[in-house]
Amino acid sequence: MLTLHSPLDMHVHLRQGDMLRLVAPHTARSFAAAVVMPNLAPPVTGAAQVLEYRQAILEAAGHPFEPLMTLFFREYSRAELEEAKPHIVGVKLYPAGMTTGSEAGLADMERAAPTLAHMEALDIPLLIHGEGCGFVMDREAAFLPVVERWSRDFPKLRIVLEHVTTAAGIALLERCGNLFATVTLHHLLITLDDVIGGLMRPHLFCKPVAKRPEDRAALREAALSHPRAFFGSDTAPHPVTAKEAPGCAAGIFSAPVALPALAALFEELGALDRLQAFVSDRACAAYRLAPPAREVTLRRRAWTVPERIGTVVPYLAGQTLNWMVD
Amino acid sequence: MLTLHSPLDMHVHLRQGDMLRLVAPHTARSFAAAVVMPNLAPPVTGAAQVLEYRQAILEAAGHPFEPLMTLFFREYSRAELEEAKPHIVGVKLYPAGMTTGSEAGLADMERAAPTLAHMEALDIPLLIHGEGCGFVMDREAAFLPVVERWSRDFPKLRIVLEHVTTAAGIALLERCGNLFATVTLHHLLITLDDVIGGLMRPHLFCKPVAKRPEDRAALREAALSHPRAFFGSDTAPHPVTAKEAPGCAAGIFSAPVALPALAALFEELGALDRLQAFVSDRACAAYRLAPPAREVTLRRRAWTVPERIGTVVPYLAGQTLNWMVD
Repeated sequence: MLTLHSPLDMHVHLRQGDMLRLVAPHTARSFAAAVVMPNLAPPVTGAAQVLEYRQAILEAAGHPFEPLMTLFFREYSRAELEEAKPHIVGVKLYPAGMTTGSEAGLADMERAAPTLAHMEALDIPLLIHGEGCGFVMDREAAFLPVVERWSRDFPKLRIVLEHVTTAAGIALLERCGNLFATVTLHHLLITLDDVIGGLMRPHLFCKPVAKRPEDRAALREAALSHPRAFFGSDTAPHPVTAKEAPGCAAGIFSAPVALPALAALFEELGALDRLQAFVSDRACAAYRLAPPAREVTLRRRAWTVPERIGTVVPYLAGQTLNWMVD
Repeated sequence: MLTLHSPLDMHVHLRQGDMLRLVAPHTARSFAAAVVMPNLAPPVTGAAQVLEYRQAILEAAGHPFEPLMTLFFREYSRAELEEAKPHIVGVKLYPAGMTTGSEAGLADMERAAPTLAHMEALDIPLLIHGEGCGFVMDREAAFLPVVERWSRDFPKLRIVLEHVTTAAGIALLERCGNLFATVTLHHLLITLDDVIGGLMRPHLFCKPVAKRPEDRAALREAALSHPRAFFGSDTAPHPVTAKEAPGCAAGIFSAPVALPALAALFEELGALDRLQAFVSDRACAAYRLAPPAREVTLRRRAWTVPERIGTVVPYLAGQTLNWMVD
């Protein structure tokens, strides 16, 4: 038996409507709180929308659960951020269209600066999907110079490099004391070989795409030991019809298996005693959170992950796990 | 109008049974002859099987067409190869389970040597699927040392590096005068970005997987100019149910669009006058072939590639091409 104190998932996509009602209980069952991404249609860009979305999540959760809300990055005034601040834990930036190191990339960064300055002054963390344009295997590494520049230009701004996938991303933690990183379950387990090395596996397709074995090794090392690396699943459900299709959507629905699979991995790595730090303590320190006190217990009991949960194929479908959330 | 003299596709998978009857006419319509891969179930490993498969292809082709047959590599005696030689143009080696540079890889190479010596003595070309084990993006480069060693150990053996995908593979042509390479249509057009850089595209999934932009640039340069690089489509049909599935099979069915799409690409590159060399002359020189004299004419006429051909989604489905096989 393994008891986790206030386990946190610092990066989840809970969607809306029927999908929200399907998936939210799976996150809420395992986690005391979770950082909820704002990439809805339309994106979450104001305090009223945050509160409305938060309410929908609470109604769907079905367990004692604290949604930690975020805004979608755009150019915000200080007043807008002040109004939102009591209701959010961060602002999430997606660099759509940003070409790192190019003129367009610089122009975008210039436009971001005033908002980043407000966020720094108000002590609101910046959450980044850290990919530029360019070749798919290089996108994270290509974006890191932007992260590093922001880290230096805004030294009191806490920046979270979300779903880090590369050894280069982990290495940047050493150079930037105000930089943090979330690490997903799937990037700890798979490489690109699992996605396209044998048959092509649409249910393992995610963004950023899984990288090389040496990248995975760096992520594992950080998950075990780095004080500024913590768990964020990036659980991202899509209906099976959007996955097994000529154009397969990116995203892995890992919420139902996250804690059991993490326990199995940490046990395999001989580090089960560090799981508490990875799934809660380091995130609390980074976000200065006092999450709702809730204990979640894992038991050593074999179960088989269902092939489908509603319309969604969960991560590790059909596989047997030896830890189960009580 | 563009007339090609004896266009050749030096790498095709024509399958068996219903699939053979569906796809063979598409190759036979555009090409005077094609090198037919022997990876059937069971693989083609003897003269009788070669003749039986050849007959089935001729019955399915529906056009004047010469199947250039191959054996599946195993350890063959000199007598077996002598018996097969009148009926084949080469022996195709798939390095399943070979780990390049490892002890297992060396052991495999040792076992191949007597057969390669017979092939060299009998002047039978070796066709290689040039991938070792290891990380998917590195497999071709990792296998090249084996190709280079064989090229040196058997200096009179003609070796064809099939469906070359990397700049490193092209560079090896410079160091090995007895080495040739086939280049596919799709590797001239796509990179890994097209496969997994946006949505995931199962119909662009093939082995070896498409590589980096700089690799594609090297392939294009070789297709235009290298005297030992020639066209082999690796057209490899799978039913749509095997492509849009949780485990998507590798292969792109390009036969119906091969010549029109090649003409469009060569025209775009300002090298339409080099298409004849790429799709026939260099292959004739490499294989010392005198293919059946047949002219295939392309007309400048727009047509839309069908979404389905029987059970198969063809390459470039739904796209409009400006050249059409007459």
